Amino acid sequence: MKIAGRLNDIEPFRVVEVLTRAKAMEASGHSIVHLEAGEPDFVTAAPIVEAAKRALDQGWTSYSQATGIPELKRALSDWYQDRYQLDIASERILITPGASGALLLIASLLIDPGEGLLMADPGYPCNRNFLRLVEGEGQLVPCDASTRYQLTAENAATAWRANTRGVMVASPANPTGEILSREQLAELAALCRQHEGALIVDEIYHGLDYDEKASSVLEVEPEAFVLNSFSKYFGMTGWRLGWLVAPEWAVEPLERLAQNLFISMSTHAQYGALAAFEDATLSTLEQRKGAFQDRRDYLFPELQQLGFKLPHRPAGAFYLYADCSELTDSASRLAGDLLNEVGVAVTPGGDFGRFRGDEHIRFAYTTGMPQLEDAVARLKRFLS
Amino acid sequence: MKIAGRLNDIEPFRVVEVLTRAKAMEASGHSIVHLEAGEPDFVTAAPIVEAAKRALDQGWTSYSQATGIPELKRALSDWYQDRYQLDIASERILITPGASGALLLIASLLIDPGEGLLMADPGYPCNRNFLRLVEGEGQLVPCDASTRYQLTAENAATAWRANTRGVMVASPANPTGEILSREQLAELAALCRQHEGALIVDEIYHGLDYDEKASSVLEVEPEAFVLNSFSKYFGMTGWRLGWLVAPEWAVEPLERLAQNLFISMSTHAQYGALAAFEDATLSTLEQRKGAFQDRRDYLFPELQQLGFKLPHRPAGAFYLYADCSELTDSASRLAGDLLNEVGVAVTPGGDFGRFRGDEHIRFAYTTGMPQLEDAVARLKRFLS
Repeated sequence: MKIAGRLNDIEPFRVVEVLTRAKAMEASGHSIVHLEAGEPDFVTAAPIVEAAKRALDQGWTSYSQATGIPELKRALSDWYQDRYQLDIASERILITPGASGALLLIASLLIDPGEGLLMADPGYPCNRNFLRLVEGEGQLVPCDASTRYQLTAENAATAWRANTRGVMVASPANPTGEILSREQLAELAALCRQHEGALIVDEIYHGLDYDEKASSVLEVEPEAFVLNSFSKYFGMTGWRLGWLVAPEWAVEPLERLAQNLFISMSTHAQYGALAAFEDATLSTLEQRKGAFQDRRDYLFPELQQLGFKLPHRPAGAFYLYADCSELTDSASRLAGDLLNEVGVAVTPGGDFGRFRGDEHIRFAYTTGMPQLEDAVARLKRFLS
Repeated sequence: MKIAGRLNDIEPFRVVEVLTRAKAMEASGHSIVHLEAGEPDFVTAAPIVEAAKRALDQGWTSYSQATGIPELKRALSDWYQDRYQLDIASERILITPGASGALLLIASLLIDPGEGLLMADPGYPCNRNFLRLVEGEGQLVPCDASTRYQLTAENAATAWRANTRGVMVASPANPTGEILSREQLAELAALCRQHEGALIVDEIYHGLDYDEKASSVLEVEPEAFVLNSFSKYFGMTGWRLGWLVAPEWAVEPLERLAQNLFISMSTHAQYGALAAFEDATLSTLEQRKGAFQDRRDYLFPELQQLGFKLPHRPAGAFYLYADCSELTDSASRLAGDLLNEVGVAVTPGGDFGRFRGDEHIRFAYTTGMPQLEDAVARLKRFLS
């Protein structure tokens, strides 16, 4: 039976092969250090878990509003006020089933067949696949270390085509951890206004910013679309809750889409997420953020000393995107060898784009310091 | 800013207006009987809640496999063996974020731009919108009481066009509660085979079948796609868990889509759902099923006596789709009047299709017997 053409363009994740092989090796007794996972290695903070359990005990197991419970929207509106000094009406905030749900809404709302959004290559691979789903395209712009792998207004202006509907960037970014400054966001916003295009910023690693506070695009462009999530800073990957901040004109059509595509998000999970903003939770989250920063500060110079090219220490997320071109002529082969020979699991750059993907390895410091030290020792053994 | 053309075709739910108005009336002190909700009025069974809480306590708050945890797939495979005497390999079962997620996978897998699936009008309105999302179309076939509002092989054969990729039916159906017999499913399967098309059957109301056991299409067509859900019979609407049974050849591309579109479903919710198959849970669910049957047996003749045309008592789900053309020339006005004048909230047929939608009202017997009796008394008052 024929399947849809879009399946020709939607690739599997290479990291899944790494994971499958790593699990098989562990099952047969090998010790593996995991630096491939794009999620925190901490369980969800206790106040969130307890709040969700209370919601279940109260029988809150029915559908809730298609764009989220009003209490959680208001809590997020307060969050923007507290953390960013921004007035974001709670009605402009749509809760989504993970940031994945927000990406689906954005693509469905903005992209007609044949249209696309500019985005950095390397980048989060699903972004372009959501566009492909609705018969649009990710317009990948090669970005290298000279712009910290980020799409700048200058590069975007050159790449803009007749069928470009806007720009999608991430700050801090996956796989690089690099941040766009407030000025860079403002320049991108100006470019998009000039072209009457949309500016979409993935801020799902906000909160995990170490040397400088990551600016929200909403500080410079109130009409931007912002994707965010309870997964990373708030440590709720396995709950599937994200959110989308949209300009007011977009709320009604987005709600129509959400009614049809999702019906509802998990109700008790949303009541759990309300506890994410309690002092006890935030205190835990800030401690964890400190742990991530310590790990970055340790791993970054170690990788440099091992011969990985890392010209800039990224300020956010929990990734280092290391140029391994002086160590190998194939990052995917290097990733395979690291796993097979010294039991270190990493993600080959090919998962994140086509531009020099096979010259990079993504290291996720989503494991404890002892494991990181072990990994570095293993890498030394392999590379010496 | 321009939005995508598909938004012109994706309509809001009219029932949301009913709900909003009903809530406003309740807030100002009116008593409302709710017959509009498409979800059970029971909280999730205790063993499921307790299992989910245990999973949370054990810290199972991370991502899990993109197509679901293997334990839950195996439990569903056993379910098909126990309930249908069918061997369904657990690898062919994909857990999804609600049946909504399964619909997204199906549309994305099968439909190229300009292609479509035949479906009954009236039907679940989101079905055609998932197809529209990927630039396909729901090919609505008008179905009336003569075929119990179901799409038959005969009608589908007549409606089949060059761009038709298959047939999507539901049994028991929303909004009608009507079941397709095993023979009817076999005839649809034969038609789809003849055209090399796909047969997709929405079985999310399975388990809620009263006078006869609803057959699964998998009994007559092992290559069919089946959508199902933990929402209705298993009473887990607010958890967002469904599943898809796919032919073996479709599993790999569906997994690629799931990786990109969902990453993961709620992990602890899946561990909760494992308890859905325990004897204590099933005993509760069977009692609830009995309550639904009692309500149907009460409401069906009462509506007939009130002047609604209901030529056949539907055998499943929790809906009655009543022809009100002898009572009004506008079902949507009747729905509004019933709410405003006697406080009975129902869903106008226009939510479910274009064919004689405004001649029908959907009554959902998702409220207790005292409320149903109250609703009937109010309807009598209004209609006398």
